[in-house]
Amino acid sequence: MKTNRRNFLKNTTLFTFGGMVLPQLSYSNMKKGSLPQKGLQLSFEPYNLQLKHVFTLANSSRSTTPVMLIKIKFEGFTGYGEASMPPYLGETQETAAKFLSRLNLKQFTDPFRLDEILEYVDNSATGNSAAKASVDIALHDLIGKILGQPWHKIWGFSAENSPATSFTIGIDTNEVVKQKVHEASDFSILKVKLGRKNDKEMIETIRSISDVALCVDVNQGWKDKQHALDMVFWLKDKGIEFVEQPMPKEMLDDIAWLTENSPLPIIADEALQRLSDIKATIGAYSGINIKLMKCTGMREAHKMINLARANQMKVMIGCMTETSCAVSAAAQLSPKADWADLDGNLLISNDPYSGMKVINGKITLNNLPGIGINNS
Amino acid sequence: MKTNRRNFLKNTTLFTFGGMVLPQLSYSNMKKGSLPQKGLQLSFEPYNLQLKHVFTLANSSRSTTPVMLIKIKFEGFTGYGEASMPPYLGETQETAAKFLSRLNLKQFTDPFRLDEILEYVDNSATGNSAAKASVDIALHDLIGKILGQPWHKIWGFSAENSPATSFTIGIDTNEVVKQKVHEASDFSILKVKLGRKNDKEMIETIRSISDVALCVDVNQGWKDKQHALDMVFWLKDKGIEFVEQPMPKEMLDDIAWLTENSPLPIIADEALQRLSDIKATIGAYSGINIKLMKCTGMREAHKMINLARANQMKVMIGCMTETSCAVSAAAQLSPKADWADLDGNLLISNDPYSGMKVINGKITLNNLPGIGINNS
Repeated sequence: MKTNRRNFLKNTTLFTFGGMVLPQLSYSNMKKGSLPQKGLQLSFEPYNLQLKHVFTLANSSRSTTPVMLIKIKFEGFTGYGEASMPPYLGETQETAAKFLSRLNLKQFTDPFRLDEILEYVDNSATGNSAAKASVDIALHDLIGKILGQPWHKIWGFSAENSPATSFTIGIDTNEVVKQKVHEASDFSILKVKLGRKNDKEMIETIRSISDVALCVDVNQGWKDKQHALDMVFWLKDKGIEFVEQPMPKEMLDDIAWLTENSPLPIIADEALQRLSDIKATIGAYSGINIKLMKCTGMREAHKMINLARANQMKVMIGCMTETSCAVSAAAQLSPKADWADLDGNLLISNDPYSGMKVINGKITLNNLPGIGINNS
Repeated sequence: MKTNRRNFLKNTTLFTFGGMVLPQLSYSNMKKGSLPQKGLQLSFEPYNLQLKHVFTLANSSRSTTPVMLIKIKFEGFTGYGEASMPPYLGETQETAAKFLSRLNLKQFTDPFRLDEILEYVDNSATGNSAAKASVDIALHDLIGKILGQPWHKIWGFSAENSPATSFTIGIDTNEVVKQKVHEASDFSILKVKLGRKNDKEMIETIRSISDVALCVDVNQGWKDKQHALDMVFWLKDKGIEFVEQPMPKEMLDDIAWLTENSPLPIIADEALQRLSDIKATIGAYSGINIKLMKCTGMREAHKMINLARANQMKVMIGCMTETSCAVSAAAQLSPKADWADLDGNLLISNDPYSGMKVINGKITLNNLPGIGINNS
C-alpha cells in the first residue's frame, strides 16, 4: 500500500481519470513545505536464527546463527536489511551494533544517492562487510518501494532466467548423507562439501541412490595440484558440474594450473570478497561466488557480476544462513548468475519474512517492489 | 501527466487518502483483460540537424548532420531516442531506417526487460551502432517515465558531480581561432583539435588571449612516439589537462609507451567503440572516451564506465552532433565521468528538444523522468 501512496503523492497537479477529479499532494513540495524535513532513519535489532539441524564443523557445532535485522525509514516507506554473521567470519551482533550506531544516515535526505551514501558507509570503518551489506540491502528495498518495482526489473533482468538453487549436503556418515539426499528431493542440484579423506565415498554414496545434478565445494581442502586435477577428472566422470575453491587461496599458481587443465569450471569462493578482489582471480579461476555478506551488498555485487562477465567468467550467487530478507535481496541478482546457492533461509525455523521461493528447485522471484519481501 | 496516470493505474485495491476513497484500476489486469495487449510500438523519422557553423574537415565541409528521431510508445508512455550519423561513421538515414523497420519490438510486452530486448536488437544485425543506440535511449526514456525518475537517480548517482563540458575549437586560421575562443567564454574547458603541422601555433594563439583550461584531441594525428612524448611535455607546460587519441589506434605498443612516460592522461577514442574493446586499452591508455552512438547506448555505456573504473581508468563521455535527446541521455551518465564533451546540441540551430543545460560551463541535470527532455 505504501508504494501506491507514494506514487499517489508524487505530484500536485489536478488531473482527471474516469471522470473524477483527483487532488494530488506534492511529494517534493512536502519536502520543502511545512512538514519537517527528515533524513534516513536507521534502526536495528539483534535476532538469532534457529537452525533446523545442528550445523557440525570440524571442531564445533552450533544450532543458531546471529544476525542483525535493520530498517531504514524514509517518508512513509520502510526498507528492510539484514547482516548475517556466522562466527567464523569475525563479525558479531556487538560489532554490527557498534558499526550501525555510529552511522549518521539522517544527514541524507535522498535515498536515491546510493553512490554517496554507500561510500560514506563503506568509509566509516574497515571490515564490517555484513553490517555494511545490511544498510545496502535496506536502501535497495527502500528505493525499490519508492519506484514501485523489484530490483530485478529495475536492473533490466528477466526473472525467469534465475537458475536452480543448490542445496548443501554436509560431510556426514553414509546413512545420514543418504537420508539428507532423500530429504532434498525438491532440489535439482545438490552441493556436496568435500575436502576430507572420504571425498570419493561421499560422492559414491550419493550416486548409489541418485543421479541428481551435483556440484562440490572443497573449501580449500586439497593441498596438492595433481591430486586436485585427478579428483576433478574423477568428479567429471561422476557428472559433477563445477568445483568450488579446490585449493587454498594462497596457492594461486597451482589453482591457475588446475583451472587451465580442468574439464570442470573452477569457482573462487574464499579467494575473494569484494569487487577489487576479482582482478587477482582473472586467469586463475573460471568464475566467482558472490555473497552479499562478504561484498557489502547488492550494489557492489551487481558491479562484480558485470566485471566477471566482461572477463568471460562464470558467476555464482551464494549466501550465509540468512532470513528471507538477505536471501531475497541476493535473488534479485540471480537472473544474471549461472548458478545459485541460495538455500540459507531454508535452513532456519524462525524466518520473520517471506520472499523469493524455491519452486521445483528453481529460484522464483515475485513482483513485490524492492527486494521482494513481506513480514511473514 | 502520463507518469501520474501510470502510477495511478498500478493497483486495483481501494485505499483512502485524506478521507477520500479512491478506486484504482489494475494496470496489470488491464494487460490481461479486455483491452488488447500490445507490445512496444516503434516509430521513426529522419531529421536533418542544421549546424550553426559550417563544419570543415580536410577534404570536405558540411552544414548538416543526418539523424533519425525515434519514439517507442507503450501504454500511454512515450520514450524518445535518437541516432546521430555523421557521414564518416558509415551509417545513414537509409541504413537506420532499414535496421529499425526490420525490428519487431511488438513482441515485447514489458519494457523493463532491457537485457532481453537489447540483446535482440544487438543480434538483429551487425554494426548499426547509432541505430541500436536510438532504441536503447528510447527504452531508457520510457522506463524512466514509468518509474517517474531520471536515470541518474535510478543509477544512484549524485547529479551535482557532473563535470564541466568542453567546447570544441576546430583547426582554423589564427584569427578565427581567437574569435571562437572569445565566443566560447561561457565554457570552463575547451577542446582543441591538433594533429597538423601547426599544433604549437594553435595552442600559442589560444594562450595569447586566454588561460582557460584546455584539452587536446589529436585524432590519431601523431605518427612518431618520441614526437608525441615531446608534444605531451610541451602541452603539459601550457596547462593542457589531457590528450585524446594521440597516435593511430593500431600503434598500440607505442601508445602504451607514451602513456607510461606521459605527464598527462592519454585517452582512447578511435581505439574503442564498445564494452568488449576496453580490454585492449587496459595498460595502454589512461582512460576511455565513451560515446552512445558508438557503444549502442546507455546500458552498455554504464557497463563500460564500471569496467573502466574497475581497471583504474579515467572516463570521458562524448557525443556527436546531436539534439538534446541523445546529449541528455549521455548526460545521465556524466556524474560518473571525469570529463565530458557534450556540446553536440549547442552546435545546431533546430533542436526539437530541450533537456540537460550547460550552466557556467557545467553539465546541469534536471529532475525530469527518463532521459530528462521535453519537446521544445
